[in-house]
Amino acid sequence: MSELLVNSQHGHLSASQRVPAMARPFVSERAMKTLDLVEKFVEEECIPADDVYTRQIGETTAERFASHPQIIEDLKVKARKLGLWNMFLPKNHFKEGAGFSNLEYGLMAEYLGKSRVASEATNCAAPDTGNMEVIAKYGSDDQKKRWLQPLLEGKIRSAFLMTEPQVASSDATNIEMTIKRDGDSYVLNGSKWWSSGIGDPRCEIYIVLGKTAPNDPNKYAQQSVILVPHNTPGITVHRMLSVFGYDDAPHGHGHVTFQNVRVPASNMVLGEGKGFEIIQGRLGPGRIHHAMRSIGQAEKALEWMLARLNDDRKQPFGEMLHKHGIMLERVARSRIEIDAARLAVLNAAITIDESNAKGALKEIAEVKVLVPAMNLTVIDRAIQAYGGGGVSQDTPLANMYAQGRTMRIVDGPDEVHLLQLGKNENKRGKAHLERIDAQIAKGKALCREYGIEPKDRLHLDRKSGEVSKL
Amino acid sequence: MSELLVNSQHGHLSASQRVPAMARPFVSERAMKTLDLVEKFVEEECIPADDVYTRQIGETTAERFASHPQIIEDLKVKARKLGLWNMFLPKNHFKEGAGFSNLEYGLMAEYLGKSRVASEATNCAAPDTGNMEVIAKYGSDDQKKRWLQPLLEGKIRSAFLMTEPQVASSDATNIEMTIKRDGDSYVLNGSKWWSSGIGDPRCEIYIVLGKTAPNDPNKYAQQSVILVPHNTPGITVHRMLSVFGYDDAPHGHGHVTFQNVRVPASNMVLGEGKGFEIIQGRLGPGRIHHAMRSIGQAEKALEWMLARLNDDRKQPFGEMLHKHGIMLERVARSRIEIDAARLAVLNAAITIDESNAKGALKEIAEVKVLVPAMNLTVIDRAIQAYGGGGVSQDTPLANMYAQGRTMRIVDGPDEVHLLQLGKNENKRGKAHLERIDAQIAKGKALCREYGIEPKDRLHLDRKSGEVSKL
Amino acid sequence: MSELLVNSQHGHLSASQRVPAMARPFVSERAMKTLDLVEKFVEEECIPADDVYTRQIGETTAERFASHPQIIEDLKVKARKLGLWNMFLPKNHFKEGAGFSNLEYGLMAEYLGKSRVASEATNCAAPDTGNMEVIAKYGSDDQKKRWLQPLLEGKIRSAFLMTEPQVASSDATNIEMTIKRDGDSYVLNGSKWWSSGIGDPRCEIYIVLGKTAPNDPNKYAQQSVILVPHNTPGITVHRMLSVFGYDDAPHGHGHVTFQNVRVPASNMVLGEGKGFEIIQGRLGPGRIHHAMRSIGQAEKALEWMLARLNDDRKQPFGEMLHKHGIMLERVARSRIEIDAARLAVLNAAITIDESNAKGALKEIAEVKVLVPAMNLTVIDRAIQAYGGGGVSQDTPLANMYAQGRTMRIVDGPDEVHLLQLGKNENKRGKAHLERIDAQIAKGKALCREYGIEPKDRLHLDRKSGEVSKL
Amino acid sequence: MSELLVNSQHGHLSASQRVPAMARPFVSERAMKTLDLVEKFVEEECIPADDVYTRQIGETTAERFASHPQIIEDLKVKARKLGLWNMFLPKNHFKEGAGFSNLEYGLMAEYLGKSRVASEATNCAAPDTGNMEVIAKYGSDDQKKRWLQPLLEGKIRSAFLMTEPQVASSDATNIEMTIKRDGDSYVLNGSKWWSSGIGDPRCEIYIVLGKTAPNDPNKYAQQSVILVPHNTPGITVHRMLSVFGYDDAPHGHGHVTFQNVRVPASNMVLGEGKGFEIIQGRLGPGRIHHAMRSIGQAEKALEWMLARLNDDRKQPFGEMLHKHGIMLERVARSRIEIDAARLAVLNAAITIDESNAKGALKEIAEVKVLVPAMNLTVIDRAIQAYGGGGVSQDTPLANMYAQGRTMRIVDGPDEVHLLQLGKNENKRGKAHLERIDAQIAKGKALCREYGIEPKDRLHLDRKSGEVSKL
Repeated sequence: MSELLVNSQHGHLSASQRVPAMARPFVSERAMKTLDLVEKFVEEECIPADDVYTRQIGETTAERFASHPQIIEDLKVKARKLGLWNMFLPKNHFKEGAGFSNLEYGLMAEYLGKSRVASEATNCAAPDTGNMEVIAKYGSDDQKKRWLQPLLEGKIRSAFLMTEPQVASSDATNIEMTIKRDGDSYVLNGSKWWSSGIGDPRCEIYIVLGKTAPNDPNKYAQQSVILVPHNTPGITVHRMLSVFGYDDAPHGHGHVTFQNVRVPASNMVLGEGKGFEIIQGRLGPGRIHHAMRSIGQAEKALEWMLARLNDDRKQPFGEMLHKHGIMLERVARSRIEIDAARLAVLNAAITIDESNAKGALKEIAEVKVLVPAMNLTVIDRAIQAYGGGGVSQDTPLANMYAQGRTMRIVDGPDEVHLLQLGKNENKRGKAHLERIDAQIAKGKALCREYGIEPKDRLHLDRKSGEVSKL
Repeated sequence: MSELLVNSQHGHLSASQRVPAMARPFVSERAMKTLDLVEKFVEEECIPADDVYTRQIGETTAERFASHPQIIEDLKVKARKLGLWNMFLPKNHFKEGAGFSNLEYGLMAEYLGKSRVASEATNCAAPDTGNMEVIAKYGSDDQKKRWLQPLLEGKIRSAFLMTEPQVASSDATNIEMTIKRDGDSYVLNGSKWWSSGIGDPRCEIYIVLGKTAPNDPNKYAQQSVILVPHNTPGITVHRMLSVFGYDDAPHGHGHVTFQNVRVPASNMVLGEGKGFEIIQGRLGPGRIHHAMRSIGQAEKALEWMLARLNDDRKQPFGEMLHKHGIMLERVARSRIEIDAARLAVLNAAITIDESNAKGALKEIAEVKVLVPAMNLTVIDRAIQAYGGGGVSQDTPLANMYAQGRTMRIVDGPDEVHLLQLGKNENKRGKAHLERIDAQIAKGKALCREYGIEPKDRLHLDRKSGEVSKL
Repeated sequence: MSELLVNSQHGHLSASQRVPAMARPFVSERAMKTLDLVEKFVEEECIPADDVYTRQIGETTAERFASHPQIIEDLKVKARKLGLWNMFLPKNHFKEGAGFSNLEYGLMAEYLGKSRVASEATNCAAPDTGNMEVIAKYGSDDQKKRWLQPLLEGKIRSAFLMTEPQVASSDATNIEMTIKRDGDSYVLNGSKWWSSGIGDPRCEIYIVLGKTAPNDPNKYAQQSVILVPHNTPGITVHRMLSVFGYDDAPHGHGHVTFQNVRVPASNMVLGEGKGFEIIQGRLGPGRIHHAMRSIGQAEKALEWMLARLNDDRKQPFGEMLHKHGIMLERVARSRIEIDAARLAVLNAAITIDESNAKGALKEIAEVKVLVPAMNLTVIDRAIQAYGGGGVSQDTPLANMYAQGRTMRIVDGPDEVHLLQLGKNENKRGKAHLERIDAQIAKGKALCREYGIEPKDRLHLDRKSGEVSKL
Repeated sequence: MSELLVNSQHGHLSASQRVPAMARPFVSERAMKTLDLVEKFVEEECIPADDVYTRQIGETTAERFASHPQIIEDLKVKARKLGLWNMFLPKNHFKEGAGFSNLEYGLMAEYLGKSRVASEATNCAAPDTGNMEVIAKYGSDDQKKRWLQPLLEGKIRSAFLMTEPQVASSDATNIEMTIKRDGDSYVLNGSKWWSSGIGDPRCEIYIVLGKTAPNDPNKYAQQSVILVPHNTPGITVHRMLSVFGYDDAPHGHGHVTFQNVRVPASNMVLGEGKGFEIIQGRLGPGRIHHAMRSIGQAEKALEWMLARLNDDRKQPFGEMLHKHGIMLERVARSRIEIDAARLAVLNAAITIDESNAKGALKEIAEVKVLVPAMNLTVIDRAIQAYGGGGVSQDTPLANMYAQGRTMRIVDGPDEVHLLQLGKNENKRGKAHLERIDAQIAKGKALCREYGIEPKDRLHLDRKSGEVSKL
């Protein structure tokens, strides 16, 4: 079976050989080996399974969100046998994982991103990954036993309920779901949407963000995170949202209403008012995972584009498509953009590994904006090379584009991150102004020292407002 | 004097503290210290000197290309005292340099790029750097003694004559300058332009690329590199080319004609027909230097932009410019693009250090295209923030833009590098096609195995041309 | 009912009032009135019906492609009563239409483009429009009676079968479908895909492009167009292609195989070998229709974006979205880009009206490339303003994006049009070179006349290859 | 002499033949003839004179700003003889002009934009054009006699002093120049920069914007416009600003200080507090002129690019540059972008002609942003096609780029216009929201009417905040 890769890609460099020079000191030998294994597993087992998986999902909405394709369980067995399981849990924080750093898992996530089923097959699928991190880090022993254990074993799945339909939840302080203490219980009321994964029939636990203290003057102390079993009375999943026509079944993106949903007080995570702290910590590594999977999708799009360019059955105007000059330029630009983006993500992962998500805020925000835009550009070029095939089900491109497009929105739209980055840079603005003014003043003094009559530059004295010649 | 930086930039991180996490393992402690020293020297000594330098150059063309501003010599004395001299010569190849790797010097070059005089003040200015590398690597002992020694000591300067006005010299095989053996001499005939540095009154040696065997069927064996003293009879510098409206005096970009220029046969470098080999080796590290200086210029443009955004004397519509939402978005995008580009250059530098310029062809080509485009975008945003000031002599921005624009052209225009990269990627195209076909076929087999009736995908058998349902 | 528009849009300019100044001389008073009627019909009747229509289509594939929502027939009745019927047939060529020019209908098509059902409700839907034009222009009396009449009355629908899955059919000379004469019949064999509209249960006639003379040395004489009733034995619709995740049911995009499909010889249109002529004529106005509908979609996207910006329920960071500076900039850019693109389409329509599609090749090609790119940019901005809502079924944006994306592909991908335009421009290249050379030479003569010693410009004599000073 | 065009451009369409179809009804026969004459005059007389003009300007700053090349006067004589004089003054407002509409002159300005000397040679050069309009429209008889008459005859030149160095004068309410009444005089104090044209030795009159009532609560009543003869005591021209290294001598962009500059009270234009009204009226047509000249520059850049692509002396990699696929794509994109931009400008010109500058605010603002960006893109592509030649004095491209770049800044930076446009569009935002809500509600009612159980769309009641199913 391993001949698929070996035979077909003469001169092929393995995943570990392609790790950028600058990242190599950060990758252990074990991780290098696992990385090659991941590539092999994805290319030989997962990608061929993608279509099978898609076809094992039913046709009507009811069928589609009740389905659990058998092939995914078969792949999980194979993956565990290969030791490809829970690679995402970073070694320096969790004993439960496979013992890799964020960087090392990031390199693997690139390959997982090339297949629809690979992340789930290796128990590294969102939103379970982030949810497992949350419970592992902040959960009580009982919470861990009841929910973390089966999640780590891939027996159940989970959802993360944060975004709400009626408010601008790109700003999390707007969230309106209420969580009220009532005796030994908490009672939840409100609406959520984009509750991804809620469609899966195995999804048994919801991690819910809401407000326990909506009137707390400290906006960042109003929120709490609480665990809600999927079958608690009062929960209604109204409908599933589509993404460019795709329903992403059985996973799905739910629109849910909570009406007097009552859970034991012990389901609170970490304590009331800790919601912001928890979600902040959750998002950092998750963004790296998303970003590296996007890199993988961009690579896949480029591979499909190159395949089309070299398909001798489809020669417009009597020439292979790669002879059309514009196509190779697009390939080259894609290569450049992918490679630069990958370095940015890897550097962010290392920064998380060396400090933590907080210390890597800038690097993560940069990646959050840079990677999806790059990914969409690369996929779009591949779509264009395929023409009609590119937008249809005959290539994975249109579906990847739709997924990729959401990456500019989920976990905060581009604009929120850009504004944050901009404000952060701007903090040094005044200092830059002062330094530049001082350099100009020093230049003026030097001119005098060298006996130069300055004539073409003015100096505006900021205090007196006087304009003098420099 | 060091108070300039310390006082003005509260919370300022030093150059060594800003080295990206991923690059740190590659930087020695000594290089870190030197890097901080470079930053300090540039910010405190060189940038204030830039205007002085500009003013010490005369007004008429004749004056401007005869000038040698005293301040540059004063700075050279200071730089040598600080140990900031010849940092560019990579330690693993040359004993003459300061003992740094390409990566380490790259980090320093970023800061040198912020000042017009800094590179020359530290004897790290192009084209001398590349020329010194050529003579150090390929020159005879006599050539080294006569030309390398004074170059290393900053006593003379040099030019590199390659590009020609009448042919498309982005393709070096087109070059027409002839170098004919005649007894103990070589005789050169032809035209060159963009002979940068030729205007400097201290420029004493020209490194010239021409053809010794124009009819050799092997196009890459026709060229040779030869050393020509500036005062050899038969050389005419017709005129200096401008870049936008700048003449870049006294450095300058010359248009030169050689008529029966005769030099001793011993001036040949390495041997006849070795021209391609020599220039290929020369260009790799030079591109890294250019790229890192461009990164420095982009950082400087961003600093100026931030200074403008925080200048409370200039508030359009009653608000500081940073309050205008669009400005901080541009700042943020600049930050993202600079940081990603820097990582790409550093990774290319490391790849050169670990293999050599040949082993880093892809990485260098990527950087060659990526960095100048990024740099121009960032500078252009800063220009726009300044309005009229941005295009004038009151900011360094317009001049940096003009210089930056040439970076998309020198050492081969973008298009040549993109085509090369594209062709290189395309080599794997057929393999990708075969692998994807094999994955589709395997998916088809899996479908059968899982008892699925496939219905919405066709498989085109490339051999029979038959269309069958998958 | 008309209060919908009147009440809600205070200060609203009607469609006729918004016709650009430059286009007004070309629009009759009757067309102006009809235009306003079209706007009213679309905004008040069609857009509210869009969701109803969508919901009246079933859930399974079999249901969806058998459905014919009643609301569309109800709208057709209303439209005919209003005189909004067959407006697309240009008055100077066809007596059967409503008597408008391409420009006038183009203005109306903009509004039709805002609703999913409006084009069909007014019998102006592709591909029927182009097919009706073909039969009206080239069809025999019998063909007209059998197929054109019911099409004009909206009783049946039609498909246009041109593109093929196994060849690069952006180059129509590659088409492989064979049409062989056999006695009084023609026999067709081959595959087609992107046969749009073939899914509709009322689609009764296929207009098929194939080769009657595949070996004719004149590549443009090989093709013919023939009419094939949908129920002719030997036709198999294998599957429907999706666009991103949309199946566009019941319309649909079919993948079809013809195996020995036999039709009477009298079904041939115009005669053997006339295929190219027919499709060339067909595409011009069709591209204008597509383009103007895209303009309408861009306007709609901008309206939705503005609605979101002014929704006071969704205020990120305590401010209406329109206060976030970047948003209004995007609105402004969209306005600029839409308005410029509209002028380009209207100018192309006028050029067709004044000459014909052949005389407007350049204008049509320009519009073909310009409009879809603009449209996608505008829609994408609106999607981003909505966040999750933008990619889902809660806004029309994602669906419009998917449709809009195909516009860069259908009727020839961008690249084909760009190359054609580029080649056409290049025809004048040599003349430009000669003129510029002559101007330089004249400048040189003038310099002498004015007693100027030229010094900084060379003149390359193209004949002698000699470099002389200008 | 007319053979230059005729011989060199076989198949050349004349300027009048190239007027877009949509604009033709607005152009008189006389204007068509004049247009062809303008093209001929520019191509045959002015472009060859450009180099002569450049060379007749001196070398030192002092020389350069004292020069008045003879060739310009010779061209003026020729132009007047041809009837090409003052074409800019719109016929419906001024009897003094040549009797053309803004549209008609706009078409001519495109050709004037192709030469450095053409606008001045036909007495259509900025800032004189706008200044003449101001005096013609608002000036007293005495002002007209003293200043307008010699300007109309091309005997003197003028400057417009508005922008100030120390404030953000993109917002004209920030202007600080004071104009104080003192008896029969006004006394001016303050600084101005970007006072374009002030360098010309023939520049005799300054039109100055300043504040007569800096404390007026109505910000738009503070400013006044006054006429100041160039030799009034107290005026100092400190220095000339450069634009990307170009000094634009003798025209130039001055930095000027007024110290107690006293002029007769009769020099006030229109009356105190009328400054805003005057400059608003001045800017509209001026922006059309700028825009059309930019269109002409873009056309010229494209012509130069095409010339390079067809230069058989410069073939990289053995092929003419036009064979490199990417080049023709760039040509095609340039053609598309130029043509769309031209239509936008012509439509704005017509809108001015049919209403006035106020009624065309939107159209003018659109053009102000659209055209310079397009122009820079097109020029940049041409620069890249030329490589080193493109940035140097050997092509007009770098100089045109520098000029073009200022067009994104002068008369208000892009951002000011974008914000204004965005705010204007946003006025309809609430109406769009309401209409869309009403359409959704109507769709909901229709669903009920058609017996449909809606399931996948929510309706948020904005008043109750209740989420109900649609």
